[in-house]
Amino acid sequence: MAKTEKYAIGVDLGGTNIKIGIVSQRGKLLKKISLSSKAEGGPDKVVKQIRLGIKEILSKNKKKIRGIGIGSPGVVSIKKGTVENPPNFPGWTKVNLGNIISKEFDIDCHVENDANAAAIGEMIFGTGKRYNSFVMITLGTGVGGGIILNRKLYRGEIGAAGEIGHITINYEGPRCNCGSFGCIEAYVGNNYLISKVKADLTASPNPKILKLVNNDLNLLTPLIINKAAEDGDAFAKSVISEMGEQIGSALASVSNLLDVSTFIIGGGVSGFGRSLFTAINKSLVVRVITSLRNRVKVLPAKLKNEAGIKGASALVFYKS
Amino acid sequence: MAKTEKYAIGVDLGGTNIKIGIVSQRGKLLKKISLSSKAEGGPDKVVKQIRLGIKEILSKNKKKIRGIGIGSPGVVSIKKGTVENPPNFPGWTKVNLGNIISKEFDIDCHVENDANAAAIGEMIFGTGKRYNSFVMITLGTGVGGGIILNRKLYRGEIGAAGEIGHITINYEGPRCNCGSFGCIEAYVGNNYLISKVKADLTASPNPKILKLVNNDLNLLTPLIINKAAEDGDAFAKSVISEMGEQIGSALASVSNLLDVSTFIIGGGVSGFGRSLFTAINKSLVVRVITSLRNRVKVLPAKLKNEAGIKGASALVFYKS
Repeated sequence: MAKTEKYAIGVDLGGTNIKIGIVSQRGKLLKKISLSSKAEGGPDKVVKQIRLGIKEILSKNKKKIRGIGIGSPGVVSIKKGTVENPPNFPGWTKVNLGNIISKEFDIDCHVENDANAAAIGEMIFGTGKRYNSFVMITLGTGVGGGIILNRKLYRGEIGAAGEIGHITINYEGPRCNCGSFGCIEAYVGNNYLISKVKADLTASPNPKILKLVNNDLNLLTPLIINKAAEDGDAFAKSVISEMGEQIGSALASVSNLLDVSTFIIGGGVSGFGRSLFTAINKSLVVRVITSLRNRVKVLPAKLKNEAGIKGASALVFYKS
Repeated sequence: MAKTEKYAIGVDLGGTNIKIGIVSQRGKLLKKISLSSKAEGGPDKVVKQIRLGIKEILSKNKKKIRGIGIGSPGVVSIKKGTVENPPNFPGWTKVNLGNIISKEFDIDCHVENDANAAAIGEMIFGTGKRYNSFVMITLGTGVGGGIILNRKLYRGEIGAAGEIGHITINYEGPRCNCGSFGCIEAYVGNNYLISKVKADLTASPNPKILKLVNNDLNLLTPLIINKAAEDGDAFAKSVISEMGEQIGSALASVSNLLDVSTFIIGGGVSGFGRSLFTAINKSLVVRVITSLRNRVKVLPAKLKNEAGIKGASALVFYKS
C-alpha cells in the first residue's frame, strides 16, 4: 500500500546561524541551507533572515509542503506561536514568529522551544520511536531537555518544562549561570567542563593531552578529552567517569520523580561516545529506587548533525 | 440548591496501626477508629484486621457509603488494586487488596500509594483545591511525594512516580537507605535529621536544647528543635535554615524539570512551622530559573492529623 510521502520545512534558529531544511515524513533530509541569524540586528532582522531562508529553500523545491516547524531558544507559547526572551538574541522581548511566518507563506507554522523540538524529533524519527515515554537530554554548551510522556511533549504550566540542565546535583556546588548553585550544567556544560579540566591540567600538566592540543590548552575540546581517554590516559578517563557519575545522579532524580526509565542523550558532548554512556548508566542504576533499577536505560540519540532541522520539521508531523 | 452529602470510608494502612474513618464529600471526618496492623503476622493477618476495622465502623454507621479508599505504603497498581512489597510488612509480596475488600463489602474499593493519596486528599479537601497543578511533599520518617498535573495524579510508568525523597541534593552526600547517595531524605528524613543533630550536640553541647530534653538526647524531636529556635537559640535556628536550604534545592530541581510552581508541604516535620517554610521559600526562589522565580510558592498542607484517612477517602470522590 504505497502512500504519498509528506514533507515539511524545519527551521533551526540559533544565535549564530539559521539552518533550514526540507525533511520527509520518514525523517530524510532532502535539502539544506544555512544563513546568518544576524541576531545583533534585533528581532526584525532575524525574522527577515528566516523569511529569506524559507523563500530560498522553497524556490528550489517541487514537493508539496505540509507545514513549517521552527525550533527556537527561549520560552515558547505554542498556542500563540510567540517566542520570549531567547538568550543571545539582543532586543528581543516577545515575537509572534508563528503568525508572521504562517501569514507570509500561507501555511501552518509550529514554533517550539529547541530542546523540546529535539525531543519530538527523537520521538518521530529517532531512538524515541519505540518508547511511549522518555526524557531527552542535549549535552552541549548548555544542558537541555525535553520530556515525552505517553507520546506527548510535557510542557508544564507556561511551556518552560524540561530544564534538566538546572537540576541540582550539589546544593553547595559551584554557581551556575542561571543564578542557582551546583546545577548539572555547571559541571558538564561544555564551557564549565572545559574550564574545570583546563584548571586541573594547569595545576598538574598531562603530557598526552598537552601533545594533542600542541601545548595550547585553549584548543581543548570534549573530543580531545575523549581521544586521550581512548588512548588509555588515566586523567582523561577519570574526567569522563566523573561526568557519568554526575549526569547519572541528575537522571536518577528525574527517574525517581517521574517514574520514567528511558533516557536519550544527544548533542555535542556525545562526542564522548560509549565510555560516557557506560559511566552514566553505572551511576544511574545505583541511584534509582529499587522498582526502577532493572528498567532504566541510557541510549544515544539517533539524529546527529541535522537534529535541529529534523526536530523542527517533526513539529509538523507531530501536530498533524 | 441543597444536595445530599456523600460519604466514603478512608483506610490509612500503616506499619503499626490501621486508621479507618468515615469522611463526607466536604472533607469532614464523622467517625474514626484505629486498630493494630499486626504486620508481623503477614498479609493474611493484615487483611483480616482491615476487614475487622471496616466492619466495625460500618456497624456504627447509618450513612450510605459511596466507596472505600485505601492509602497503602508500597507500589500500588490502581488498575489491579494490588499492593507490592510495602516496606515494614514482612512476608508481603503482592496482594490484591482492592479485589478482596471490594468483594467482601460489595462496594467499590480504590487503592493508592499513601503519598499519592495524601496529594489527592489535598487536591479534593485541602490547600490544593485552588491549584490545577502542584507537588505535595510529606515530611516525616521518610520524605514522600505526589504530583498533581491538571487535576490528575501523575503516576508514571508503573505507579512509582513522586519519590521526591530520593531526589539527589548532593551526589557525593551521605548514603541513603534506598542505596543512593545524598538524597534529600538522607538529610531531612526524621531519623537522619535527628541523628545528625544529636551528633552535633554531642560534639558541642547546647544548654538550651539539653534543658528541653532533660539532658537526654534520645528525647530529641523536631518539635524540640523548633521550640529552641523559637526561643532564639542560634544552633536550632541554623538547623532549620539548613533544612530549608536543602529542601528548597530539591524543590527547585522539581520546579525546573516540571515547570510546576506550587508546593504543598505536610507531614510530621511541619511541626517546624513557619520558620521552615520561610527558609524553604528563600532557597527555592533563588534556585529556580527566571521564568519561575515570581511564580513559585510553598504552602502548608491543610489536612493535619487525619490526612491519612481523609486522603484515602478522597480516592473515592476523586474517582467518582
